[in-house]
Amino acid sequence: MAGNDLPRLRRVVLERLMRYYRWLAESTPKKPLKNVTSGQIAEALDIDPTQVRKDFGAIGLQGMGRVGFEVWEVCRSIRHMLGFDHTYYGVLIGAGHLGRALMAYNGFARYGLQIVAAFDNDQHKVGGKAAGVPIKPMRTLKPFIRKHDIRLAILTTPAEVSQKVTDRLVSAGIRAIWNFSPTRLTVPPDVLVRNEHISLGLSQIAYHLKQ
Amino acid sequence: MAGNDLPRLRRVVLERLMRYYRWLAESTPKKPLKNVTSGQIAEALDIDPTQVRKDFGAIGLQGMGRVGFEVWEVCRSIRHMLGFDHTYYGVLIGAGHLGRALMAYNGFARYGLQIVAAFDNDQHKVGGKAAGVPIKPMRTLKPFIRKHDIRLAILTTPAEVSQKVTDRLVSAGIRAIWNFSPTRLTVPPDVLVRNEHISLGLSQIAYHLKQ
Repeated sequence: MAGNDLPRLRRVVLERLMRYYRWLAESTPKKPLKNVTSGQIAEALDIDPTQVRKDFGAIGLQGMGRVGFEVWEVCRSIRHMLGFDHTYYGVLIGAGHLGRALMAYNGFARYGLQIVAAFDNDQHKVGGKAAGVPIKPMRTLKPFIRKHDIRLAILTTPAEVSQKVTDRLVSAGIRAIWNFSPTRLTVPPDVLVRNEHISLGLSQIAYHLKQ
Repeated sequence: MAGNDLPRLRRVVLERLMRYYRWLAESTPKKPLKNVTSGQIAEALDIDPTQVRKDFGAIGLQGMGRVGFEVWEVCRSIRHMLGFDHTYYGVLIGAGHLGRALMAYNGFARYGLQIVAAFDNDQHKVGGKAAGVPIKPMRTLKPFIRKHDIRLAILTTPAEVSQKVTDRLVSAGIRAIWNFSPTRLTVPPDVLVRNEHISLGLSQIAYHLKQ
């Protein structure tokens, strides 16, 4: 891969690249830009322009003075660097309200993620589908992951079972866990856990509305 | 309100309080704790114990040495401080996939938020319901907000219309915007904007899976 001689990027850099990409690729469908300057991106996203140029430099992009960067090249570089140009398959564990909401959301495919199956212990859910994704019994989780070489699991289980499920995922060979369950997970160092808390923003909102 | 003599809390403090609350109130339903120490919370959430005690002190909570804090009192104090003990009503703008996913998610009520209506321009959606919430035409947005004294709007519109919608929300008297649309919004200083980016975590995940 072309990027293999570049340094490993930190999480904050990855997140900024994602924000640039989203703004360039998705924000301006009605008036697409051909070129963009670091100043325009900085202004739109409230980020220091020097930081934008530094991040672009870190993935091998060089601007052309006042003309800036070619949008298609920036988008292609970021997609390639972050890995969005490859499809990766994920399973979702816990087909409750949040799990179903994530399956119904069709915004992940553009970042390479395809959810291929959901797993749940509830006999009323098993055998059905949510947003076109089949819901399977938990006992088939491990063989499914192994057979289909699944790398990512999205966890929306109740907190008290999340570690037990995580242990099963890890022993089945999963490489990344996107954790929406409200608990910290213990995993081996080569497995990535990304914690999400969808309601976190409500702390700021409710507090503001109370004042 | 009892907390009015306490200093105004910063966003990072609010978010930590939210994480404490979530862990205490929601993580341990099968084996509820009566008391909890700052050390236990620190260990569970990977936060420095001194920070936990400092945050608790900031909302007027004092531990009792090795016994720690009473869980019910901590939960009540955080709920009160963040404003979760009052119901606040919100509208959702843009009943697309993400909007519908958020309406289907029933985890917001416990933090005081109730979504009472959604608004969209699509004639095929208007008049219908999503997760029990009625979908109304955009032209009725302003009178609805005024009539029902709505304080919060959840924005899941396409980026190119978000600022225009925001201007209407502000002129209707909205006080907080939970922004899921991929763009920065300009608002008066007394209006809070909380930006969310649900796919942000995929930057880290896709990059990890690529290695």
